[in-house]
Amino acid sequence: MENIEKQLQQKIDLKTKPLGALGMLEKLAFQIGKIQNTLTPKLSKPSLVVFAGDHGIAKSGVSAYPQEVTFQMVLNFLNGGAAVNVFSQQNHFDLKIVDAGVNFDFEVNDQLKNAKVGKGTKNFLEEKAMSKEEFEACLQNGKAVVEEMALKGSNVIGFGEMGIGNTSSSAMIMSSLLDLPIEKCVGRGTGVDDEQLKNKIDILQKAKDFHGPINSAEEVMATFGGFEMAQMCGAMLEAYEQNMIILVDGFIASNTFLVAYKMNPAIIHNAIFCHLSNESGHKVLLDELNVSPILNLGMRLGEGTGCTVAYPIIESAVNFLNEMASFESAGVSDKEN
Amino acid sequence: MENIEKQLQQKIDLKTKPLGALGMLEKLAFQIGKIQNTLTPKLSKPSLVVFAGDHGIAKSGVSAYPQEVTFQMVLNFLNGGAAVNVFSQQNHFDLKIVDAGVNFDFEVNDQLKNAKVGKGTKNFLEEKAMSKEEFEACLQNGKAVVEEMALKGSNVIGFGEMGIGNTSSSAMIMSSLLDLPIEKCVGRGTGVDDEQLKNKIDILQKAKDFHGPINSAEEVMATFGGFEMAQMCGAMLEAYEQNMIILVDGFIASNTFLVAYKMNPAIIHNAIFCHLSNESGHKVLLDELNVSPILNLGMRLGEGTGCTVAYPIIESAVNFLNEMASFESAGVSDKEN
Repeated sequence: MENIEKQLQQKIDLKTKPLGALGMLEKLAFQIGKIQNTLTPKLSKPSLVVFAGDHGIAKSGVSAYPQEVTFQMVLNFLNGGAAVNVFSQQNHFDLKIVDAGVNFDFEVNDQLKNAKVGKGTKNFLEEKAMSKEEFEACLQNGKAVVEEMALKGSNVIGFGEMGIGNTSSSAMIMSSLLDLPIEKCVGRGTGVDDEQLKNKIDILQKAKDFHGPINSAEEVMATFGGFEMAQMCGAMLEAYEQNMIILVDGFIASNTFLVAYKMNPAIIHNAIFCHLSNESGHKVLLDELNVSPILNLGMRLGEGTGCTVAYPIIESAVNFLNEMASFESAGVSDKEN
Repeated sequence: MENIEKQLQQKIDLKTKPLGALGMLEKLAFQIGKIQNTLTPKLSKPSLVVFAGDHGIAKSGVSAYPQEVTFQMVLNFLNGGAAVNVFSQQNHFDLKIVDAGVNFDFEVNDQLKNAKVGKGTKNFLEEKAMSKEEFEACLQNGKAVVEEMALKGSNVIGFGEMGIGNTSSSAMIMSSLLDLPIEKCVGRGTGVDDEQLKNKIDILQKAKDFHGPINSAEEVMATFGGFEMAQMCGAMLEAYEQNMIILVDGFIASNTFLVAYKMNPAIIHNAIFCHLSNESGHKVLLDELNVSPILNLGMRLGEGTGCTVAYPIIESAVNFLNEMASFESAGVSDKEN
């Protein structure tokens, strides 16, 4: 391992450019070479899995949109009309939509994987969002879909989500696992105003007080998470087992990653953080994880859009490592000192 | 004009996403729609022109690399081994290399446009870098290459540069046109150390004192610029005349843009700033222009690499505007309040 690191850094440093002049592209090339244990890494069949699920908390006034937007957006995904469809097509992602637990009966559809664990979680203001059994089922379902994508030859996988109310779940997870006050973890989600934001914080504080301290990451996810988040968590853990490159999207995906990371810290070696969300808690979270996202475009949409939009930059990193000439091969003079 | 702005904003706002949730992509889509005066803009045949030229000042110890790196890198471009070759190929740019004034006799090569105005500029420590006639010739040569690309059907064009010593030229331009002290405009270029940086600042301060105040942007460019920068300036002005989208790269390209902007302020409407360079003066400059770059990847390489790496994100902006469903067409509920 040490040897590949040294060789990768040397290969990067001998390219025809000043030392470090490709910035983050150099870090990405190094990381990907290390994951694949090679000086000539390859990105193969990028895939994106979007998990959808409903949240009991959505009925308590934490979101700007009604709960039915979850199922309506799933139909929009299936019809190819959402942002993530557009960006997946542009950048050649194999897009998979998973019903992890939406409060709607979908017709059978080739493009929709049925992994429904329930018709939405319970309201965590009153009880745990899901049972231990439901949580375990979610991990298994997430694992299964990643196995499927890996079998198809994908070695780089991103995860998106759709679930009205899931910025609230994310804030609860972050506040619990990083021991931060709710206010630092809460943002405007899809667009609540000042008064609604204050109300959202009050509601979430009540939930925190109601459940009291929680010891494990698994229990935090079961208490506050969504089926779509728990399935994404299982998917991320499996993607690491398959040694895939894991593309982490915005605020909700990063909080899901936080749970997976607490369950298996090694997962961070395979993770690429794609986008700094405009959701205010996201920067705090990424700083805690000591990671830098590729993009900061002020997006706050979820769906895995950050993964798909950032992907060409990851390709650029792999391409320069494989294709650029070295000082020696190009006959270019190196630095004078 | 007002009407197209209103229609564009409405089209963006009715897409199936919370208002503003695609952040900078929305701003880019709006800008491009406005440039092309249409609700369905198209990016056609992206092109990148890399201008190369040598600098008299390079012999005064302001750069970490020897002057011959300029011609060696031109050969590297022609052989396809540089970073900009890799990224141009990835993102389907038509790449054109222009010898604006390199201190080397190149063999005839289809891929190299000979627009040589001289074998490098004069040293601005002792005299003006170029004569008025040379400056005018540069503007004409830059204009000619853009006309060529526009004739081929390109409506989006980026500009790169190669010229050892041109961060010094850029610092002088910035300091002169924005009336800022040299220290705020100088960085480490391709990698000078602390002592060299101090030395670079001292040298540039001497040059500033020697020439005294200069009144026009044109004269600033002629006094301190490079042939590659002056040609890029002419090229940017022509790209605006052709109503092309102008992709502005890093520190040197932004200072060249600053000269073009002073010559024709309307040019800013067509300009997209692709990357915040790691060169420290760049942020100051972009703040002065009141613009936000798409990427901040810590790159400092020039060559137009920022344009080519950022391009897929510009494509994403155009694609969402053209391809995403609206709330109405997708049957998705809008916000409750």
